[in-house]
Amino acid sequence: MQHTQWDHRYAQRTQRMKGSAIRELLKLTEQPDIISFAGGLPAPDVFPIEEFKAACIRVLDANGRQALQYGASEGYQPLREMIARHTERFNFGVTADNVLITSGSQQALDLLGKIFINHGDRILVEAPTYLGALQAWNAYGAEYVPVESDQDGMRTDALEEALRTGPKFIYVLPNFQNPTGVTMSLERRMKLVELADRYGVPIIEDDPYGQLRFEGEHLPSVVMLDNNLRDQSGTYTGNVIYLSTFSKILAPGLRLAWVIAPPEVIRKLVLAKQGADLHTATFNQVVAYEVGHGGFIDKHVQVINRVYQERRDVMLDSLAENMPNGVQWTHPLGGLFLWVTLPEHMNTTELFKDAVAEKVAFVPGSSFYPCGGGENTMRLNFSYSRPEIINEGIARLGRVIRKRI
Amino acid sequence: MQHTQWDHRYAQRTQRMKGSAIRELLKLTEQPDIISFAGGLPAPDVFPIEEFKAACIRVLDANGRQALQYGASEGYQPLREMIARHTERFNFGVTADNVLITSGSQQALDLLGKIFINHGDRILVEAPTYLGALQAWNAYGAEYVPVESDQDGMRTDALEEALRTGPKFIYVLPNFQNPTGVTMSLERRMKLVELADRYGVPIIEDDPYGQLRFEGEHLPSVVMLDNNLRDQSGTYTGNVIYLSTFSKILAPGLRLAWVIAPPEVIRKLVLAKQGADLHTATFNQVVAYEVGHGGFIDKHVQVINRVYQERRDVMLDSLAENMPNGVQWTHPLGGLFLWVTLPEHMNTTELFKDAVAEKVAFVPGSSFYPCGGGENTMRLNFSYSRPEIINEGIARLGRVIRKRI
Repeated sequence: MQHTQWDHRYAQRTQRMKGSAIRELLKLTEQPDIISFAGGLPAPDVFPIEEFKAACIRVLDANGRQALQYGASEGYQPLREMIARHTERFNFGVTADNVLITSGSQQALDLLGKIFINHGDRILVEAPTYLGALQAWNAYGAEYVPVESDQDGMRTDALEEALRTGPKFIYVLPNFQNPTGVTMSLERRMKLVELADRYGVPIIEDDPYGQLRFEGEHLPSVVMLDNNLRDQSGTYTGNVIYLSTFSKILAPGLRLAWVIAPPEVIRKLVLAKQGADLHTATFNQVVAYEVGHGGFIDKHVQVINRVYQERRDVMLDSLAENMPNGVQWTHPLGGLFLWVTLPEHMNTTELFKDAVAEKVAFVPGSSFYPCGGGENTMRLNFSYSRPEIINEGIARLGRVIRKRI
Repeated sequence: MQHTQWDHRYAQRTQRMKGSAIRELLKLTEQPDIISFAGGLPAPDVFPIEEFKAACIRVLDANGRQALQYGASEGYQPLREMIARHTERFNFGVTADNVLITSGSQQALDLLGKIFINHGDRILVEAPTYLGALQAWNAYGAEYVPVESDQDGMRTDALEEALRTGPKFIYVLPNFQNPTGVTMSLERRMKLVELADRYGVPIIEDDPYGQLRFEGEHLPSVVMLDNNLRDQSGTYTGNVIYLSTFSKILAPGLRLAWVIAPPEVIRKLVLAKQGADLHTATFNQVVAYEVGHGGFIDKHVQVINRVYQERRDVMLDSLAENMPNGVQWTHPLGGLFLWVTLPEHMNTTELFKDAVAEKVAFVPGSSFYPCGGGENTMRLNFSYSRPEIINEGIARLGRVIRKRI
């Protein structure tokens, strides 16, 4: 790298900003003949394009001047109320005062980092965990306390020891986790909520995929279990900050997500958001409300789930058919991802080059470990590719692994 | 304020995040019978609603799957190229590699703060200056070195002394500045570029209103003068980072803006943007390209300028008619704002309560001074209100001032 006039100007934190391995890999895998399980893209086949078009027309005809104007930093009020109502349905009382609209969940992670993280603060995370959270928080100088997870999610038997290191908060993805696809058991959710309350450490519950459950019953969210602990109703004032998004249930190209938190945390987030982007695009919020408020999303989620369940099943069957002995994988009950573990001597970062040569791609699992580990693991996305492509891609991946095993 | 369980958890920087005075005032002035010159809103009368509707339909019919999907952090490539071409027109060579799409210019300010500002770094600013920049950079611990401005913009005779304090960068709004409406003279622009180059201090040129010139000839932008200094063509690699936006020439509710900078600065900004919101909404970018790429924006800017020029003229005439002796104001050649200076003994923050009682609102000027000053000044917006409303509002304001003078 050439030395330039800019090198000495960057802030110290800029040294900690590294490109997302996933996004760099995605560039490598953009050649059309590569079958990529590396991305985290929803299936464009299920985008409700006609509903969006009708909503854009209605919004611009009836309400164009408001929809194209500046808006409140908190978000479009009818959308905040719609989200509060939707959350109420799960027997968990929140009001619009608990809701902040953000420009994707990534912005929620960034704003939470901005208001909470001092340089050197420790964040308790599952290992592996969502890479975007690490990217957001590295810029604020976060350190990480990893807690191992297994097929029931974060190992709460290891949690108390980790809590004694004095973390600033706990970050969990309880449903169909990114990257593993694993769901945290009810027992562990309850234990997590209890311990966090006892140690006075807040929880950030990141739930982008919660509604994308293909089988089994929905488990209570961590924020709801925390609320039960307090026996409150109405405006939530507990210990959990909950994140979700329209990216997986409508479309990611809108960059629309939300935070549910105690009102005083919302107020701090609003101040941070004013400095970060003033507010999320009004047009997107009004259109999403117009598409969503009449119950469309619930019906649409069923469509998505039928498509994703089929693709997951195809991938599971194809793995069983093509993987040699010694290779294991998770069986997600929903979401977009599953997780493959190769024998311990194998290294998926090295394997990646072989895979690209064979025209198939994945994300090496070590990317998702903030403090090392996972060299023999990989994340596979099953939501994006059509069934016949999944079959062909897993067959290629099987050949690549067999050569090295 | 009640002490709560959250108080001790916030990061140190959160102490420096204060609500925007303007946004708080705007809330006070949302009653429909108040005439507000406090906001910075474009006239909704000139939003190109039909063009947006047609573009949404075309985009969703032809390109819906891409427009609703995740996109590149750098921005939608055809939009980056359109902006590069548009900039080329002004005899100033840039390529798409110089362009980053941001979620409004506010995000550009935030990302620049993130990559450049260490706690305690000094930023050289005009006094008064844009409040949103201060809000963005306070969170990174910025200190400010104010340089006075007059009717020709930043006083470059005072610049050299300020540069000797070792600022991280210089922040200027050369065209129809927010808040004063003043335009920096060509002579001073050239002096600024020379001195910044000599001291090795980069310039951030914030130009949200440059195309909204009602009279006189466009002056060369600071980035172009810097480029001339270097005698380069093609990809720009100089000392200036240039910001502009679609908020004032199309619609602010899209949250779409752009940065022009040397490619290596763009690469750092892209890393920061990945952590901040992954990318700006794809849909908005594709629609803005669809609306803008055929030359529509140039024609539309003429429509906006006719409307804003009339409103500026009405406000200037009304000020001449209603203001007592001793009150002065700027005569902007474009943009959205003008600046009123009352006799020295008066305080516009105190006057604000009288004004709201009289059902008229403005922003007290002291909000725009990072290190104090401007107690007898105020910012008035002329773009939002219709002419008859402007006349009535200025008449009310005249009565309020006469009572106190």
